[in-house]
Amino acid sequence: MDEFAPTRIETLYQQGIAARPDMRHFCSDPLDEALMARLLQAAHCAPGVGYVQPWRFIRVGSAELRSQMLALVETERLETAKALGERQQEFLRLKVEGMRECAEILVAARCDKREQHVFGRRTIPDMDLASVACAIQNMWLAARVENVGMGWVSMFDPEALRELLRMPQGSLPVAILCLGRVDEFYQRPMLETQGWRAPDDLSDLVFDDYWGVGGGG
Amino acid sequence: MDEFAPTRIETLYQQGIAARPDMRHFCSDPLDEALMARLLQAAHCAPGVGYVQPWRFIRVGSAELRSQMLALVETERLETAKALGERQQEFLRLKVEGMRECAEILVAARCDKREQHVFGRRTIPDMDLASVACAIQNMWLAARVENVGMGWVSMFDPEALRELLRMPQGSLPVAILCLGRVDEFYQRPMLETQGWRAPDDLSDLVFDDYWGVGGGG
Repeated sequence: MDEFAPTRIETLYQQGIAARPDMRHFCSDPLDEALMARLLQAAHCAPGVGYVQPWRFIRVGSAELRSQMLALVETERLETAKALGERQQEFLRLKVEGMRECAEILVAARCDKREQHVFGRRTIPDMDLASVACAIQNMWLAARVENVGMGWVSMFDPEALRELLRMPQGSLPVAILCLGRVDEFYQRPMLETQGWRAPDDLSDLVFDDYWGVGGGG
Repeated sequence: MDEFAPTRIETLYQQGIAARPDMRHFCSDPLDEALMARLLQAAHCAPGVGYVQPWRFIRVGSAELRSQMLALVETERLETAKALGERQQEFLRLKVEGMRECAEILVAARCDKREQHVFGRRTIPDMDLASVACAIQNMWLAARVENVGMGWVSMFDPEALRELLRMPQGSLPVAILCLGRVDEFYQRPMLETQGWRAPDDLSDLVFDDYWGVGGGG
């Protein structure tokens, strides 16, 4: 059996996974095509439930489209600030995306071919969304080991973005992904270092046999 | 900046990501506690959008509960077979889970605390589900580099499983995760080798600027 060496295990944990690299600061140096192909291939290797492959990626190079997308995000950012009430001002000071400076913008979407595969998807409300998220997470880890930063922007009206990118009815844009080289990776999630939210203790999130019972991890 | 060595990059791609290890065959040797803690910690490092941490894990050790869960899965398997029509017999011959023999069973769930964090979740229908999927995918890759197999069983009535595990209203069991040592990892997804479904060509799934335009990857 193909065993991983301990140094490789440590690499994945410490740098790939624990780095939690949701980046919002980028350099604008371009990413080469072979690298982009590897990142997309990593996403495509995600384990779709029932072996579905419901992910789609739109690579947005047009400066005009990027500006229109940025406007959608800005609109939603202001709506979010309003909904936050007393934390509005604090929120508005946060940098929530790096769309202006990142090298590549990908829109990750869930396709609308929902009729075909009932295997494992009859009961969970949106298993295709879960599969797309797995694909994004794969890409995130692949990007990190390639020393590429990635950020997930979810602040947009999905119907407006769907129309802007001429996506079919029933498909759903899940994420605007910003990709690019970075000066440095954050050591802790940015929303933690900026005092937005403290991390939950894992032992509060793991139960034994029944919800709320025991735990530890 | 902390660079990854090429051999480490190759390791992650070839063995961590490309192996697509959705396992349904396990040895029943126990997994040690330190290993389980590392896998849960890997899941907990997922990048919740807006830094939410909506994942919960129930570790099911009770033999009685496991039997009840297996019965739920079996019921749904037969329902799925009926819904499949002409592929019913072919489907019924597939091994869809390894719950009887795997060392550990974890139920991954989305919690019901949806009021607290509006940041980045106002618009996407179920961003918490997406975050839980990212956590599962992190655990999957961590398991693979630890030479532990993992399988995602999604064939169950989520309301019935929620009640069985005494989960609160509004929470959602997303996956029954089977974990354990394996004799060998599949070289290709099992549903591909058994002829259930062919992989999609990545170039059909990547577009330039607008849905359906150009592509390549």
